[in-house]
Parts: sequence; structure tokens; C-alpha cells
Amino acid sequence: MIGFTGGTLDRADRLRHDPQALAAAMGDWRARLLTLRDYVPEVTDDGRLGWTTLADAPEDAELVLLGLDGGRPCFAALTGAPAPAARSPTLFAMLDSLAAGEAATYAAARAVLDWHARHGFCANCGHATALFRAGWGRRCEGCATEHFPRTDPVVIMIAEHDGRALLGRQPAWPQGRYSALAGFLEPGESIEEAVAREIGEEAGVAVRDVRYVASQPWPFPSSLMIACVATAEADAITLDTNELEDAIWVPRDVVQRVLAGGDGPFLPPPRYAIAHTLLTAWAEQG
Amino acid sequence: MIGFTGGTLDRADRLRHDPQALAAAMGDWRARLLTLRDYVPEVTDDGRLGWTTLADAPEDAELVLLGLDGGRPCFAALTGAPAPAARSPTLFAMLDSLAAGEAATYAAARAVLDWHARHGFCANCGHATALFRAGWGRRCEGCATEHFPRTDPVVIMIAEHDGRALLGRQPAWPQGRYSALAGFLEPGESIEEAVAREIGEEAGVAVRDVRYVASQPWPFPSSLMIACVATAEADAITLDTNELEDAIWVPRDVVQRVLAGGDGPFLPPPRYAIAHTLLTAWAEQG
Repeated sequence: MIGFTGGTLDRADRLRHDPQALAAAMGDWRARLLTLRDYVPEVTDDGRLGWTTLADAPEDAELVLLGLDGGRPCFAALTGAPAPAARSPTLFAMLDSLAAGEAATYAAARAVLDWHARHGFCANCGHATALFRAGWGRRCEGCATEHFPRTDPVVIMIAEHDGRALLGRQPAWPQGRYSALAGFLEPGESIEEAVAREIGEEAGVAVRDVRYVASQPWPFPSSLMIACVATAEADAITLDTNELEDAIWVPRDVVQRVLAGGDGPFLPPPRYAIAHTLLTAWAEQG
Repeated sequence: MIGFTGGTLDRADRLRHDPQALAAAMGDWRARLLTLRDYVPEVTDDGRLGWTTLADAPEDAELVLLGLDGGRPCFAALTGAPAPAARSPTLFAMLDSLAAGEAATYAAARAVLDWHARHGFCANCGHATALFRAGWGRRCEGCATEHFPRTDPVVIMIAEHDGRALLGRQPAWPQGRYSALAGFLEPGESIEEAVAREIGEEAGVAVRDVRYVASQPWPFPSSLMIACVATAEADAITLDTNELEDAIWVPRDVVQRVLAGGDGPFLPPPRYAIAHTLLTAWAEQG
């Protein structure tokens, strides 16, 4: 299972457009509220997210409809505060302990709540905005512009050359960690073009034949990770030291060994990151 | 060539972070300015975008660095007005006449200029924002939050069943036009999950085995189109009439004939739309 995928909630788009049905869902005695403390969920012993009842929501809290779980309405409450910029080791340990699919529900909740906290005003006119569509949008009370949660496409990729993968390391990462290169896709680019531009910018490597591998949501704060492999024209590296501290070519058998827990020149990305999925897919091609 | 791809400008990210180099680019006598009138470009007889010199920019106009063309700086000027919501037939005829790659430059310019026009204020605090990074961002003059142009991932897909493709039609489309289904990807979803959700919501069809096909930027106003094919579990259709007016299963040989210009039960999507690429790829699998 790819990290943050496999969610089982029905997003129930129809309820977002039907105020009466939404009110009924909020009044449903089975309705439940995701337990979050400063954007960190509660996790049960069997890896499930913790839930409580709507009665536990702060008074006057606004609610986002996460979806229906077998007909039971599931909500999350706006806190007003944005998600902390720093992702704690505790958070990531918790993510590691979640059962398949549970992290997907958390990803949706976290990304949407944080978006509300950062988008209380209209980018078009500066006036205050108000939640609508059951929390899946905000409408300006001044100019009536409608705003929807943003999802930023990020390309994350391996350049391959002669059976070796190009891995890089950002200065802020844990010691020894290397991973796929990545960067935000820009307006006016296809996925394939963004992949080629980013590898060129960060490592000075020209690539061709970009192949899509997989995707995942990444709620820090709201990315869509799009994982690809590309063929490098040559293996000379010219590092952009504003982006990367180092970049190395790693042979397939070494990547296989490191992913299997063996020794090697780098520590692999965590399992819930799509870089892990991508490296695994590439290593298995051999 | 997929529509709006194949651009040849070097986006020159380094210049965005280097005020001195940017000032030098603006002072370069070879610098040129994209000719736009109400977001419609000028197109030369051989399908090239029209350019003029920076001297023709409105006084005090703010400039966006589109990139370098063989070292020559290329800019577009902010107009203050957002792009018109209605896309005129003239605009699309013009897009059809552009040489490969030229539409990519236009797509980037249009998406970024329109984003500036709609994002003069900080979503976080409501204060005015100012352009920075050579036009690839805005910074709040109140709370210092940095904002970057948004690109909204949209999934566009064919469900296939027994050699037939599911095509739908939106009420606003030209008479007879049918195309792939499409919808915005939401926070907390992978591409594959968004594809399955959208086909389920719009046509009531359950799918499995989602396969990525291709991508393109779509600057109306700022989407990343992600084209996929999925396998339908069954062919019964339950239409969401808020989204679609009709949906039909079309056999592969009929899609082939229509794409080749022959008669059929529907008019195909225009060549610069990725739906055309997607249908063509699917039709050729046969």
C-alpha cells in the first residue's frame, strides 16, 4: 500500500451541495468527530484513528464533512490554528503505526483543516471568507469569489543511468538520508516537463523518456506527489547547492540491499513516503 | 505533440532568486515582451507567438520573467485584469494555429498573469501582497506569508469495458461533443483514487486498474490535466445530471473512425485538449 492511500470513506460530494442533508448528517446520533490535538491524531492499539462524538467539538466550532463510513457521517473540527510547520518525529512514528487506509483519512483532514486556517481572507479582494460546501470551500463575503482547497502537484523522480539511480540529499534531512529528487510543478508544465526541468536544475543532469510510476497525497501541507523514473543522458552531476547538499549514483543491487535493511551508502526514505515506493519499484525492475 | 507542451524557454529559476541578474535581464536590449491583448496572443503566419520590446510595456507595468530563449530574456506584463471567464472560439482557433511548443509559452504566461490578477491580497491576513521572484510569487506586506501560483490537478479519464470507452457530455459543450470524464483531484487523494471517485460520482461506474497515460497544462485558469484509463467492473450507467447531460459507451472502431474524421455518434474533442491524446492512445491499443 502506498502511503496515505487506500482511504475507505465515501467523500459524499452530494451532501456538500445539499444543506438539508448536511444538517441531517450533523444531527445523526452516529456522527463522529476525528480526534486531533494540534493536528496529531489519536491512534488505537490496532492502528485505527481515534474518534469521538460531535458533542466533544469545541462550542461554535465549524465542521468539515470528511465523508461517510458505511453511512455514518465523519467530521473534523476547525481549530483556527494552522498546522505546525515542523513535523515532529512523534507524528511520523504515529503515521508509521496507522493501519492501511487510515493515514488517507488523516491526510485529507489535515490538508483541509490547515487550508482553512491559512485562507480566512479572499485573495481577490482581501475581505473575510466563510466556509461553505461542508468545509470543501470558502466563499468571499465581499466579492462572492469561491475558493477551493489547493493541492500542489510535486514531481518526485529517479534519474537512471547504466543501472544506477540518482539520489540526492537536502541539508535539513536526518543524517545519512538520501532520496529521490523532487520539486513543485509550475504553471504551463506537464508532469514530464517538470521532471526534466527539476533534475536539470538540481543536479545538472539531462533526461529523456520520463515514465510515470505512482502518486500519493502528502499533507505537509497539501501536495500531490507524482513519482516518475527518467533516463539520464549522461552521469556528470552539477549540484545546485541551494537545493541539495549532495547527489550520488547508486547501483540497483545496493538500493535493493538498503531497502531490505542491509548496509549501504545511505539511509532509505520512510515507508509512508512515495520515494520508498518509487525506489522499491525501480529496484525490482532489475 | 500533446497540446500546451513542448515549450522551449529555459525558465531560469536562478534569475528569480537573483535581483541583480533579473535587473540586468530587464535592461538587456534583446529582452522581449509577449504581445497580449485581453489575454489573447498575436500569432504570426508561421504559427509563432508575437513579441515586442519592453519599451512597449505599459508604464509602471510589472513584469513576469517567462524565461530565456537562447539567452534572450522573455517577459509578460501584468494587466491587473483577470482572464475573461468565457473562452472565445477565436482564442481556440488561434491555439489551433500555434506551432508546437508555442502554446506552452502562452499557457505559462496566461496562467501566471491571471493568478496575479486574482491574488492581490493575502489569504492568510487580508493585507495587500506584492509580486516577488520575478513574478513567480507574491509576498504579503502585512504578515510576510509567501504565496505561489496554484496549479490544480484535474484527472481526465476513460473507463473501458469490453472494448468500449465511456464518454460523457456536459450541457455547456458544443452540440454533439462527447469527451472523457474529468474532475478536480481533492486533498487526501492519489491520482488513481480521484479517477475512481470521479467516474463513480459522475456515471455510477465502479473501476479498477487505473493506468496513467499522459499530462498537459491547461491554462483555463490553471489546471494540470492528468489523463488515465481505467477498467470498468460493469457497464450500467447512473448519471449525475448535475455534472453530465449524457454518457455513452463507444466501441474502439467507432472512436478510431471519428478521430480519423469519419461519421459517428459524437464529435471528438479538439486536438490541443488532452482528451484527444487520451482517446487516440486508447483507440490505438486495439
